[in-house]
Amino acid sequence: MNTGSPTDALIDFALAPVRHRPARNMLRLSLHDWAACGMAGRSEPVARALRGKALDEGGAERATLLGGGRVPAPGAALVNGATSHALDYDDTHFAHVGHPSVAVIPAALAVAERTGATLDALRDAALIGAEASVRIGVWLGRDHYLRGFHQTGTAGAFGAALAAGRLLGLDAAGMRTALGLASTRTGGLKSQFGTMGKPLNAGLAAETGVQAALWAQAGLTSAQDGLAGPQGFGATHHGAGDGAAMEGLGQTWLFERISHKFHACCHGLHAMLEALATLDVPAADVASVEVRTNPRWLDVCDIAHPRTGLECKFSYGITAAMALTGRDTGAIATFSDDAAGDAGLIALAGRVRAVADAGLSDMQAEVTVTRASGEVLRARHDLAAPMAMDDRQARLRRKAVSLVGPDTEAALWNAPDLAALVAVLGQRAEQ
Amino acid sequence: MNTGSPTDALIDFALAPVRHRPARNMLRLSLHDWAACGMAGRSEPVARALRGKALDEGGAERATLLGGGRVPAPGAALVNGATSHALDYDDTHFAHVGHPSVAVIPAALAVAERTGATLDALRDAALIGAEASVRIGVWLGRDHYLRGFHQTGTAGAFGAALAAGRLLGLDAAGMRTALGLASTRTGGLKSQFGTMGKPLNAGLAAETGVQAALWAQAGLTSAQDGLAGPQGFGATHHGAGDGAAMEGLGQTWLFERISHKFHACCHGLHAMLEALATLDVPAADVASVEVRTNPRWLDVCDIAHPRTGLECKFSYGITAAMALTGRDTGAIATFSDDAAGDAGLIALAGRVRAVADAGLSDMQAEVTVTRASGEVLRARHDLAAPMAMDDRQARLRRKAVSLVGPDTEAALWNAPDLAALVAVLGQRAEQ
Repeated sequence: MNTGSPTDALIDFALAPVRHRPARNMLRLSLHDWAACGMAGRSEPVARALRGKALDEGGAERATLLGGGRVPAPGAALVNGATSHALDYDDTHFAHVGHPSVAVIPAALAVAERTGATLDALRDAALIGAEASVRIGVWLGRDHYLRGFHQTGTAGAFGAALAAGRLLGLDAAGMRTALGLASTRTGGLKSQFGTMGKPLNAGLAAETGVQAALWAQAGLTSAQDGLAGPQGFGATHHGAGDGAAMEGLGQTWLFERISHKFHACCHGLHAMLEALATLDVPAADVASVEVRTNPRWLDVCDIAHPRTGLECKFSYGITAAMALTGRDTGAIATFSDDAAGDAGLIALAGRVRAVADAGLSDMQAEVTVTRASGEVLRARHDLAAPMAMDDRQARLRRKAVSLVGPDTEAALWNAPDLAALVAVLGQRAEQ
Repeated sequence: MNTGSPTDALIDFALAPVRHRPARNMLRLSLHDWAACGMAGRSEPVARALRGKALDEGGAERATLLGGGRVPAPGAALVNGATSHALDYDDTHFAHVGHPSVAVIPAALAVAERTGATLDALRDAALIGAEASVRIGVWLGRDHYLRGFHQTGTAGAFGAALAAGRLLGLDAAGMRTALGLASTRTGGLKSQFGTMGKPLNAGLAAETGVQAALWAQAGLTSAQDGLAGPQGFGATHHGAGDGAAMEGLGQTWLFERISHKFHACCHGLHAMLEALATLDVPAADVASVEVRTNPRWLDVCDIAHPRTGLECKFSYGITAAMALTGRDTGAIATFSDDAAGDAGLIALAGRVRAVADAGLSDMQAEVTVTRASGEVLRARHDLAAPMAMDDRQARLRRKAVSLVGPDTEAALWNAPDLAALVAVLGQRAEQ
């Protein structure tokens, strides 16, 4: 067990070369997924409102906004973080329950653009920031989350600071200051869930990281160990201070276990949808469906009679019915208000029952489908199960196509350098 | 006792007319004191660094920076908050231990300038924000502070949001959203004390308030009761939730008990300095001085052998010696590195002893001076004792003169409207 401050380990990590190919490949996929989610989210109300404010305030045109326009780097990080989390379709890490990419990538991107970094340097910085945010999230622990802190915002801000600091070329002292300044600026409460405050938290994390790194570069001073020192962020924010969280940092990569969403709904429904996809039962032939799931999800996504498209995203019944009737649960448009009122879906949803099973992790589900004939079919899925990188890549590219269309998807995937990538990301949103 | 959420009471309060003349008079003095401290602080390194970053990023020139230049309102609030707290010479409220003016006034000023408000509207909004920040600080309670939160930054951000929201003309729903967005963006740790992170916290509070109010105006949504609701700011940040904190809100004004600093050193030394000022003993005649003080101050400001001017500000011995030798403890320049090495001061400081006395509040001190003749003189002072407004005004104006010179002081005091005030505040800092 590392008994020193995690801050020292994180600083060393953030300054070291990145050589782990599998983690870099995973980051490349997450960057693509982030870009597609971000472009798909740019017409959401929270994205429009924040982009509008940022453009209204203006300033040096150094970093590109999703949806178009250029503003100072901290503002771009804020807008892009919130925009890419607006649909809640971005990646999740279950080790700490947070969304690493929406906090870290917008910070890295804004600073990369500002400093003229290469696409490779952007990727390395984003990978380091994302890995650090997950590690810090594990170090903060579950009580931090259960008390009410949104790890995407809190742990994410520190990861964003390291990513931004790396691209700015901060030395170890500068990194230390950036972490210190992030510690006194970082917020993010779960009580915002269900409001625009949730995606805003992602943007705040990204902005905090950029701002903390820029201020460190400008010579501000800070607490020596704002993250893990006495009365630091961990101590004040119900952090467990789990020293094991930094073990193997730089050698093993928690980021490799990132979860990508392949369905445009609450992550609690995904294991069920994957399990259902392995069965081949026509909807007309379904007598009943039992879904066994971790108890925590029943409070989150078991709305029995959803009234809107948004509520459908939190309903075992309707979502299972969508899958059984062949609807594309990867498409945002599937979760419409019309779907909530669809008599066929509602009838089928009435035959679906979710059951708490504490023996399952929150990434596992078991489905039992009983046919009209009485025949019983079972399937299980564990989101934590390894997925071949080729499969993952193919599925993420299909998801991106469904979000932004084939031309934009190809342009994102094939972007040869940062300028080309940014040119795609900055396409104007349709009004 | 108010058993409802304090949020409701605060929103009503923030929208109501301000009719209490003594509180308004006190705010007028605090505004003057804030302005003088702010102008005196504009050449401090933290002020230069933050102002430099803000000007470098640029943007719509809507609000004036202490030290010169105009930037968007949130950025001006940030810079001016940090700048006015850079010398730590601004006002303090001991009910929650925080600095209301440096968090609230920069927010109110930036929005007032942006919206073209009158000087009276600025003052009313600042008074409401300051009173609210103290009330929220009391509601959060002592544990919040002892755990490590800097009330200036935390409680201050909510007060800043209400002040900014009032000047933006937000309605009750908008105020609720502004408080909600502030709740998820607010930080500020005491572990930053002794670094630029401390004044930065004041700026962060001011910026958060402005940004939260502007985002609410732009249509963002937020948790219904981000401050006091389930898993809200209080619940997550070790808040006591002291329901009595909002009693009499709008009728009685805690702000009337604001403490102004008349000495350019730690507030823990002020009661001693006031007590010494009532005695008339030539330094050469002093055999010994015993200072009885609340135990908490011994950890804070009893440096026996200060090596720098800054350390002198936290030393009972040297500060008492300065007072006994007739040095102006209200002048920043008195606390110099030269003073720390002054043999006469050091010798006299060696005859001063601070003694913990739990029977004294943290605003009280008792000094016992023994003359060479053996004669014993005693004096006490309580910073909480009422001070006639005329006396306070005269002392604050003298303080301001010592900070910014007579011409600038007079221009600040006599400014007939907001534009005139801002023209003075925006004078270029000397390089």
